[in-house]
Amino acid sequence: MTYVADLLATVSRRSRELIGWPEADTRPRKAADLSLLADALLSRRGEASGVALARDILTGYEALDADGRTEVLLAIADRLGPDRKRLADAIEAYSADPTEARAAALHVAAEPRRQELVRRLNLAPRGTLSLVRLREDVLARLDDHPGLKVLDTDLVHLFSSWFNRGFLVVRRIDWSTPANILEKIIRYEAVHEIRDWDELRRRLEPEDRRCYAFFHPQLEDEPLIFVEVALTAEIPAAIGPLIAEGGTPMPADDARVAVFYSISNCQNGLAGISFGSFLIKQVVEELKRELPKLTTFVTLSPVPRFAAWLAKERATETGALTSEERGALAALDKPDWRESPARVEKLDRLLARLAARYFLTAKGTGNRPLDPVARFHLGNGARLERINAGADLSASGLAQSHGVMVNYLYDLGRIEENHEAYAERRQVVTSSAVKKLADAKA
Amino acid sequence: MTYVADLLATVSRRSRELIGWPEADTRPRKAADLSLLADALLSRRGEASGVALARDILTGYEALDADGRTEVLLAIADRLGPDRKRLADAIEAYSADPTEARAAALHVAAEPRRQELVRRLNLAPRGTLSLVRLREDVLARLDDHPGLKVLDTDLVHLFSSWFNRGFLVVRRIDWSTPANILEKIIRYEAVHEIRDWDELRRRLEPEDRRCYAFFHPQLEDEPLIFVEVALTAEIPAAIGPLIAEGGTPMPADDARVAVFYSISNCQNGLAGISFGSFLIKQVVEELKRELPKLTTFVTLSPVPRFAAWLAKERATETGALTSEERGALAALDKPDWRESPARVEKLDRLLARLAARYFLTAKGTGNRPLDPVARFHLGNGARLERINAGADLSASGLAQSHGVMVNYLYDLGRIEENHEAYAERRQVVTSSAVKKLADAKA
Amino acid sequence: MTYVADLLATVSRRSRELIGWPEADTRPRKAADLSLLADALLSRRGEASGVALARDILTGYEALDADGRTEVLLAIADRLGPDRKRLADAIEAYSADPTEARAAALHVAAEPRRQELVRRLNLAPRGTLSLVRLREDVLARLDDHPGLKVLDTDLVHLFSSWFNRGFLVVRRIDWSTPANILEKIIRYEAVHEIRDWDELRRRLEPEDRRCYAFFHPQLEDEPLIFVEVALTAEIPAAIGPLIAEGGTPMPADDARVAVFYSISNCQNGLAGISFGSFLIKQVVEELKRELPKLTTFVTLSPVPRFAAWLAKERATETGALTSEERGALAALDKPDWRESPARVEKLDRLLARLAARYFLTAKGTGNRPLDPVARFHLGNGARLERINAGADLSASGLAQSHGVMVNYLYDLGRIEENHEAYAERRQVVTSSAVKKLADAKA
Amino acid sequence: MTYVADLLATVSRRSRELIGWPEADTRPRKAADLSLLADALLSRRGEASGVALARDILTGYEALDADGRTEVLLAIADRLGPDRKRLADAIEAYSADPTEARAAALHVAAEPRRQELVRRLNLAPRGTLSLVRLREDVLARLDDHPGLKVLDTDLVHLFSSWFNRGFLVVRRIDWSTPANILEKIIRYEAVHEIRDWDELRRRLEPEDRRCYAFFHPQLEDEPLIFVEVALTAEIPAAIGPLIAEGGTPMPADDARVAVFYSISNCQNGLAGISFGSFLIKQVVEELKRELPKLTTFVTLSPVPRFAAWLAKERATETGALTSEERGALAALDKPDWRESPARVEKLDRLLARLAARYFLTAKGTGNRPLDPVARFHLGNGARLERINAGADLSASGLAQSHGVMVNYLYDLGRIEENHEAYAERRQVVTSSAVKKLADAKA
Repeated sequence: MTYVADLLATVSRRSRELIGWPEADTRPRKAADLSLLADALLSRRGEASGVALARDILTGYEALDADGRTEVLLAIADRLGPDRKRLADAIEAYSADPTEARAAALHVAAEPRRQELVRRLNLAPRGTLSLVRLREDVLARLDDHPGLKVLDTDLVHLFSSWFNRGFLVVRRIDWSTPANILEKIIRYEAVHEIRDWDELRRRLEPEDRRCYAFFHPQLEDEPLIFVEVALTAEIPAAIGPLIAEGGTPMPADDARVAVFYSISNCQNGLAGISFGSFLIKQVVEELKRELPKLTTFVTLSPVPRFAAWLAKERATETGALTSEERGALAALDKPDWRESPARVEKLDRLLARLAARYFLTAKGTGNRPLDPVARFHLGNGARLERINAGADLSASGLAQSHGVMVNYLYDLGRIEENHEAYAERRQVVTSSAVKKLADAKA
Repeated sequence: MTYVADLLATVSRRSRELIGWPEADTRPRKAADLSLLADALLSRRGEASGVALARDILTGYEALDADGRTEVLLAIADRLGPDRKRLADAIEAYSADPTEARAAALHVAAEPRRQELVRRLNLAPRGTLSLVRLREDVLARLDDHPGLKVLDTDLVHLFSSWFNRGFLVVRRIDWSTPANILEKIIRYEAVHEIRDWDELRRRLEPEDRRCYAFFHPQLEDEPLIFVEVALTAEIPAAIGPLIAEGGTPMPADDARVAVFYSISNCQNGLAGISFGSFLIKQVVEELKRELPKLTTFVTLSPVPRFAAWLAKERATETGALTSEERGALAALDKPDWRESPARVEKLDRLLARLAARYFLTAKGTGNRPLDPVARFHLGNGARLERINAGADLSASGLAQSHGVMVNYLYDLGRIEENHEAYAERRQVVTSSAVKKLADAKA
Repeated sequence: MTYVADLLATVSRRSRELIGWPEADTRPRKAADLSLLADALLSRRGEASGVALARDILTGYEALDADGRTEVLLAIADRLGPDRKRLADAIEAYSADPTEARAAALHVAAEPRRQELVRRLNLAPRGTLSLVRLREDVLARLDDHPGLKVLDTDLVHLFSSWFNRGFLVVRRIDWSTPANILEKIIRYEAVHEIRDWDELRRRLEPEDRRCYAFFHPQLEDEPLIFVEVALTAEIPAAIGPLIAEGGTPMPADDARVAVFYSISNCQNGLAGISFGSFLIKQVVEELKRELPKLTTFVTLSPVPRFAAWLAKERATETGALTSEERGALAALDKPDWRESPARVEKLDRLLARLAARYFLTAKGTGNRPLDPVARFHLGNGARLERINAGADLSASGLAQSHGVMVNYLYDLGRIEENHEAYAERRQVVTSSAVKKLADAKA
Repeated sequence: MTYVADLLATVSRRSRELIGWPEADTRPRKAADLSLLADALLSRRGEASGVALARDILTGYEALDADGRTEVLLAIADRLGPDRKRLADAIEAYSADPTEARAAALHVAAEPRRQELVRRLNLAPRGTLSLVRLREDVLARLDDHPGLKVLDTDLVHLFSSWFNRGFLVVRRIDWSTPANILEKIIRYEAVHEIRDWDELRRRLEPEDRRCYAFFHPQLEDEPLIFVEVALTAEIPAAIGPLIAEGGTPMPADDARVAVFYSISNCQNGLAGISFGSFLIKQVVEELKRELPKLTTFVTLSPVPRFAAWLAKERATETGALTSEERGALAALDKPDWRESPARVEKLDRLLARLAARYFLTAKGTGNRPLDPVARFHLGNGARLERINAGADLSASGLAQSHGVMVNYLYDLGRIEENHEAYAERRQVVTSSAVKKLADAKA
């Protein structure tokens, strides 16, 4: 460790000297300087100075403000495409005689220099993490700067190699996990907020709770994704009781159901990188080994796009709703609609039916379900098992889905079959109950 | 483990059914079948069946004889280049409007489907190791089948990502190392053979011996490269005493010199993949931490091409040798030339001088030294320190270098500087003694 | 784990049946029942039922209230001495013919059955921890129940074997330490309170802080003792700046001094069990290895008995104080004495001198220093280096020592010599400055 | 490590100076010197010099020849009993007023100083191992020197504390176990010799083989006991096939029976120290967890005392044999008795019957079975399941038991019950088949 640190300090000084910079200028301040450094990094053959330059570029980049970063990212995207002359030559050669060898040469010539730049930046200490953070910046700017799309493609291409499934490691998170990792669990929990160390402890320590996270060696202490699990006697129909304070934990050995009630992705910069769709099954398998009496593995999941879809359908007469349904839904617009038990009962029945319809018919790009959580679990081989109206009565639960939550079921014997049905044919696998609900008339 | 194994067994059966194969046919026997399987693998989206297919392909490949393997490799190289139609379209689009986005699209279109195939094969259990072994086959066939070059390029490209320096781990190898790794040290030792467990123990257990190996998580128990070290009082001038049986080990604390006397690459299939040129320095640093009294880190290295070079120079009057030198060297042709001490003394002096000339003037491709061991150590930042004639009197030592060995010196304070001098300018960094020797007249 | 738990559940049921207890009566309620169980435990030969009985006894004991525990402890102390008949026979046999063999037999006959009871209780799951807690109870009752002294002696005898130095393990405590251990650091900190996780983090995470704890395998996650360390440029003269919030940490590499500013024993039940006097030196050595530039290892320690000693001396005219000193000390009685800088300066000078006298002359049992912190560090081989008046201005600091703190110096080259001087001759090793101070006249 | 070594070197030098020995005299040569050193060790209070002295004594002892060692051991046994004066006073005080406190004081006074000496020797580096080896010496001399019995008693008393069951750790031994431990498995195998690394590998690597060893932290790499396991389809009736070379291993998952075919104690110096009788069950449990399809756990065990017992019974007309049986057994005296199949069949039937009788009726001290292997397994809670005549046809097998071997069955549901039946009532638990055999008439 010290050696590497010393080495880099020495080399960095030297490489700065080589490119004409005074020692004291430890932080390049202008985006333009970073572009020059990137050119220098691409042109060098020496590894030592390369590592030092990579470090300087990433450190310098992180010290820039938002505009400076935009400038650097655009410069990389625009200026570091393939060598145009070389590419033209390769096209000409290939067109003249389209052999496999010339096709391969064309592929090499067409490679954007951005990819080599990113590879070299990756050699800096903690370079991978810096690049994941850099991609967060790219994603946040894509709408305003579509020119960054090429850089995003490069990053996705390389990340897909580096975050190869074979490197991912599952580790149980519990109250004996190192504190520096636990504080990240607090920070990254995206579904049901963890407010402090005491609440964290309530999620980890009772014997009817489990938590697992996936790690990658190059990101060391940074979890990629984690799942929180509650052990119960029955498939739960509401989130409130699961995360309420107090209550006596159930003896783990008495549990029959494992509920995945919160799944959080931790690294926005890795959006779209598949960690392999079998990860959640590792947790199922882990639990089954520890507690052989568990028979049922389900989620209790939000339905994030349901309210938006419903609003859209209500606004059109030619959509998924009958006019009768549209009429009944008017009651939803009263802020206090859940205060009358009779109204709640009627509306919840209707919402469940419409949610079933939503899952089975609302499609996005590539004929995949509109609902992102459904895409995740169906892609993992789960089955949409049950729809629970009135399951999340928090403000955000009512806002995004009028309180509806669902259970996805992971049945080990069916998991690959379901996965293949979804992956190959985009089939939304559901229980017969959900199917019946979707077909039901009012 | 069991879960994954079970899963794969299930999935594999199912995927065979899907592609119309009876269960019992566990091993495809014909190369042509494997090509079909490869097509199937490339066309599927489901991950479960993909992993199963990958496994079947690799297992099937390993069961083939040499001709069958050649057939499969050629089929992959020839048939799985880029999609020609799509590539032609991308060229046309780019030529019409050469934006960065279209250049990027062209790069993607030009990617050989071989690369995607290799990526998917890599997901099979122990897939990486199978692919490293497969590349051994490719390398062995390159001369006879130059069409395999494109496949080799693909493998090198992907291996370079996967064997990213950040994943390499140094571990000390000693007598408390697991036996399954130790047996590989015995097997892979390439410089000075280890005959049995007793000899292995003599290289590992005495307190003046050390051994370090580099590992990669995806190859688990397979070392990539290892170095054997002897601790001594002085820079050694001959190999014999270092590996002789018997003798009392020196107390480690009395040593001043660490001698890297054997460095073996273990995986032929990774030839040309740079593991980063700073690896050997990790060992230096490790030793320095353990034994702060060590002052000098040198190799005792063979000179594998010297005799061949000398023979060539002797055959021409316009080469590197004076006619006087050519005359004196005639004595080398007598099989018993080392039996007369006077002759030995005179010839050894001459051989040392010519070896110095060889290192400084004999160049191969890219203006790099002809000597492969010199390329390795100079690239690592070492300095050619001393030339030792009469250092290796074994049959092979006499055959490859007339008994000459050399010491490369690793000076931590100079290592990056030397590395950069070699990497950027191909400078052969030597001690002044070697320089003087090279300049000396008879 | 599960197996052992299952096994114990089964066996416990069975052993309860054997001794005539209904299954449902899981908790013996009366102290008298526990005495019966103890007799049963001593009389059995079967290990399985013995372990179950041991568990029942310890669980039952922990469920008792304070009076019930007193009753059980007294019963063990009184009733489970040696077998009197057997002892009388052994005395007679020895008196008749005092051979070594008969002396040995006498020793065995004289062993209190309490020791065998404690050994068997130790086999219960977490038995050792339960026994350490039980000794806390014994210690708390010794004054009121001197008959418990014999039980305390037995526990000390056995603990000394079990907490054999060879089993102790030093581990660094930092922000990546498991949370369940960190919460014990918060709980056991006895010198300078840690209020919450944020304060804990300030003591562990900055690069100029270190913490080390000693563990024993049979107490798993229970630290026995821990030290908190601050890295500084100079030997500190006051505690305030060391534990203040905010401030920039010093680069670890710039530090020259390591200050042990808080040392907490965690297990009252192990009072008087020596963990070997070389433990703190392991930390010194650990730090020296990590940071070779450190030259000085000191404590900043409280002087817990100084104010009490001084009050006693002030109350007598024949004690350690001159009448002039007694006069000057009257100013201490004003609650606001530290508000006048002139008075503070004068009094601090006097207090430093008297503290030096206190360390060198105030003795307790066995001619050892009265000050318990001094006994600990001198016994460890430290030297009393410097006296700092006005070093701890907290309410407790003023109450126990009028604000005086001291530095003990750990000089690796002198540590054994100092230790031996103290262990063999009770010499209080001090710097010449402290000696001069002690000799100084007003 | 280095620190401790350095420290000891310094302290050792100093302690030698203190006791008037020149530095250069590193090895005391005479037993008498060691006795003086032992006195010095007992009289010191300083821990540093104590550790150094302990090391000198143990090193010096190991350098002595057999007679020198005898002399030292006898001196310790004779001279370091309790302080006779103090013991006499304690007896007098106790006799005058036999309180618990005085009984406790008498126990302390009666403690042989040998025990304190052994405790202090244990603090030397690797002291515990040295003391285990020293007890081997004591055991080897007990017959000739009964005066050593008191020292043996002291060692057993202290070892029983130190080798407390809670510290024992089970580890699987396989082909990835460190070589320095594997070589000890080769060395300590006591039942069926392992000739070289290749044979070792055959016992560890095939998937139908397992090996487990028990370790203790103070003996580091020294196994205490290990078991070799073969996985089979049926309970085996002969040892030959199990350890024969060649043969295809059975898939672990197809096995139904785990056979403990070799159990070796490694440390003679720990003879008689119980490691707790539930150790073998940990292995059963471990196997059950890994391979849930295993249903049967048996040994294939030798019957070491059977032939001797039979010879004795044949020699008397009033013993366990009928005259008819004695007549039939005459055939055993022919060296080639196993060459006639008819004779073998008849004799094997008789031998099985007599072996059953031997197990059920032949008793040693304390009404325990004469057979030591039976005592071990019955004490562990196993049941004598089956008797196999003609099971071990090796020379030693024929010599010790006329070829008879037996299976002990470990039935997890019965294990504690069996253990208690043996421990409390010395009951020999057998299958009904064995019982019937024992009752059978010819």
